[in-house]
Amino acid sequence: MEKTLGLHILADLYGVDFDKLDHVEDIKALLEGAVKYANLSKLSSHYHQFNPYGATGVILLEESHISIHTWPEHGYAAIDVYTCGGKEKTFKAMEYIIKTLKPKRIDEKISERGIIPANLEEGINIERIDLVQV
Amino acid sequence: MEKTLGLHILADLYGVDFDKLDHVEDIKALLEGAVKYANLSKLSSHYHQFNPYGATGVILLEESHISIHTWPEHGYAAIDVYTCGGKEKTFKAMEYIIKTLKPKRIDEKISERGIIPANLEEGINIERIDLVQV
Repeated sequence: MEKTLGLHILADLYGVDFDKLDHVEDIKALLEGAVKYANLSKLSSHYHQFNPYGATGVILLEESHISIHTWPEHGYAAIDVYTCGGKEKTFKAMEYIIKTLKPKRIDEKISERGIIPANLEEGINIERIDLVQV
Repeated sequence: MEKTLGLHILADLYGVDFDKLDHVEDIKALLEGAVKYANLSKLSSHYHQFNPYGATGVILLEESHISIHTWPEHGYAAIDVYTCGGKEKTFKAMEYIIKTLKPKRIDEKISERGIIPANLEEGINIERIDLVQV
């Protein structure tokens, strides 16, 4: 029987306050808070402050990763939550991030990743993935 | 005029040799090689060896990030190449990874991320993103 190894949510958040996105300390608190809220298992976390604006962060998880890249000057953040072993945790982590950042607009894409056993005969697979309302 | 801040390729690779996916040293060489080949700018890189199988790696870039999670026991790897500032580099980095891992099957999704200025009136956006043949 087929099963899926992971679930990946890509979210583009627009209309976020500049001050929520500019400082790496706030980005760190955001991601670490999401991991705790969703009860995910952190391996390590890494951050970078850009000059003059914006930050990047990633947390490597036992279950895959969470990442963020921010453009405070555009009120924009790109978030990825990709986890294996429980869809509920994926959605909870994203929920925490969205509730904290309070974007005016959200574009969200969801992709199931790693369908096994794979049908290797198919070669190249053409698919579409849907954005869902949140 | 609208512009897009980044391009994100998600690739699920199936039918990869166990030995190409199991050791973190090989995963490190793979990602670092992709960054060099595509002339991307590394900020930092982070890796983890899982027990009994598999590895995780991420490179934070000036241009966003590259990540990999491997399940050698399934011949499977999940790759993300997400870069800002030049689509050519995104495709080159993924090309390097695919040429090195030689998967039998590739499922690839491409998403443009961060369209600015955003139309904040739209609230929630519903979209589809296409998989493309590679």
